[in-house]
Amino acid sequence: MKLATFSGGKSVNKTIGALTIVNGFEYIIDLSKAYTLYIEKFDKDPFAYDIAKIRIPKEMRDFLRGGELSMEAAKKGYSFVESLTTDPMKLESAIFDELIYKLDNIRLLPPIDRPEKIISTGGNYQIHIEKDIESNKLFKSIPDHPIQFLKSPSSVIGNGDPIIKSRFTEELDYEIELSMVIGKRCKDVKAENWLDYVVGFTVINDISMRDIILSEIETSSVFYGKSMDTCCPMGPYIVTKDEIADANNLDMQLRVNGEIRQNDNTKNMRFNCGEVLAFASRITLEPGDIITTGTPTGVAGFRKQKPQYLLKCGDVLEASIENIGVLTNHIIADEISVT
Amino acid sequence: MKLATFSGGKSVNKTIGALTIVNGFEYIIDLSKAYTLYIEKFDKDPFAYDIAKIRIPKEMRDFLRGGELSMEAAKKGYSFVESLTTDPMKLESAIFDELIYKLDNIRLLPPIDRPEKIISTGGNYQIHIEKDIESNKLFKSIPDHPIQFLKSPSSVIGNGDPIIKSRFTEELDYEIELSMVIGKRCKDVKAENWLDYVVGFTVINDISMRDIILSEIETSSVFYGKSMDTCCPMGPYIVTKDEIADANNLDMQLRVNGEIRQNDNTKNMRFNCGEVLAFASRITLEPGDIITTGTPTGVAGFRKQKPQYLLKCGDVLEASIENIGVLTNHIIADEISVT
Repeated sequence: MKLATFSGGKSVNKTIGALTIVNGFEYIIDLSKAYTLYIEKFDKDPFAYDIAKIRIPKEMRDFLRGGELSMEAAKKGYSFVESLTTDPMKLESAIFDELIYKLDNIRLLPPIDRPEKIISTGGNYQIHIEKDIESNKLFKSIPDHPIQFLKSPSSVIGNGDPIIKSRFTEELDYEIELSMVIGKRCKDVKAENWLDYVVGFTVINDISMRDIILSEIETSSVFYGKSMDTCCPMGPYIVTKDEIADANNLDMQLRVNGEIRQNDNTKNMRFNCGEVLAFASRITLEPGDIITTGTPTGVAGFRKQKPQYLLKCGDVLEASIENIGVLTNHIIADEISVT
Repeated sequence: MKLATFSGGKSVNKTIGALTIVNGFEYIIDLSKAYTLYIEKFDKDPFAYDIAKIRIPKEMRDFLRGGELSMEAAKKGYSFVESLTTDPMKLESAIFDELIYKLDNIRLLPPIDRPEKIISTGGNYQIHIEKDIESNKLFKSIPDHPIQFLKSPSSVIGNGDPIIKSRFTEELDYEIELSMVIGKRCKDVKAENWLDYVVGFTVINDISMRDIILSEIETSSVFYGKSMDTCCPMGPYIVTKDEIADANNLDMQLRVNGEIRQNDNTKNMRFNCGEVLAFASRITLEPGDIITTGTPTGVAGFRKQKPQYLLKCGDVLEASIENIGVLTNHIIADEISVT
């Protein structure tokens, strides 16, 4: 499934759904409503609505906390409603009942609105880290383990949302990153067991402010340069792991106004998904935590002609990862409002 | 009020309360139950229980999100129940009804279990930062603005909880810090308006692993050295701001096994509470976010005889700040359990 958090319709403030495609058109199935219908029909459950509300809550983090019971419920509801969509009359009626929404009629929110932790991995592609050492000096040498730091949950935005170019930066940059979504609480995970604890994958564009980062390097505390509001675009979907044959072999591409800036494959990661997760699991990981896997070469900040590649207001960014999705955002100006 | 999150009694899994002292004995008033009683009695509200449950939810972050309406409700309930405690018969009956608990009979949890953000401030006391530059090299020079970084929410523990000496460190250290608790969403706050956005204060012991930090400085990414599980003791209480005359003038003391190790006053901060909060508010701050204000001189890691001051299993730490409280924790060994 491609899991989404969305708002829209007559009354949906925020809830979770999954993408389905009918005759080439994209729809989102409301998973809680779908499961209600399923257990009403097949289990004749008189408390279907209440059970579905508990099993498939509105917040993705709560849903993931529900573990396999919640995931199984979602799959049952999803398959049942998907089977209805082959009949045009039933599809029409499901849209009328807001069991299914046309993608254009809803707003996709970040799949996980506010993760507890976003553990960001740096320097995980060889050429990128070599260029960093040359230009940015975040790294002094090539480290023999994954480099990680926290990105603020308050920086998360969804697909289509604007990235604000903070007034504190003149050097706004992009960084496409394949990201793992934790599905099960864990600690001290062995690299080879990593997939037991991951529920799926999403795209993160780790928006970075090179000038702020450079000044923060002076105090070994890179934080605001990666965590200003709107600097963590995520989504559009969490693609469940059953749909991804090998996360360590996925093409990825970052485009600015259609121009290819980053173009690589996750097989070129210095540390693969398992090694990255194992290192992060030195602290307890919770369902809904996000672990990124680093960005490949091609960012603006490490280029010789840096100024012409840095992001400007109006730029449109597309971060695309094979089988995971395309995350699109645009840059807008900061509004100063000191209170 | 001294706000607490606690569990205990016959059925309380987690809820919020406030400290009261009767004849020298400490009690915790269950704020939601107290407000239920108050509106039943004075407003004759037939939905008292349901209203109180909404107004005073079980999670401190949700309570703070309720803003002044929730705080007013808590105060009304608190004052009403406090007035009953002067009558020994009524006190006895309130204890029987679990409206009030003897402090010894419940377990204090971290006042905010998992803040969305813990923004930690470094190098905010002159002698501490000078010693850092000499020994730890986190800072290369004395910065002209507050230095901040994120501490993981998963590292939070409460008063009385054990601090695990991670197997990844040989250099476990203490850092007492006065901490502000955000009460109202804000961004771009002027330093002079800081108190409008703070609901109260708590004590944090910013447990630090000097050897991990030193290696992380190589990649400008201090994270695990401050964020291992259990490395953020917080509490015991959030003391509401009306009880603190001047947060920028509070004595503080960190003791290890009764021996004074840090002994200072918040008036010696390089950047005061307002300046620290203003700097942090370059990103959106949410109710329940924590902003620490830095630690004074005296940590083990920057002492000439460092080895004898580093923390060992069995050590008992008391972090005490005037009018805010004493936060007590002890050190235990790590248990290796690679899964």
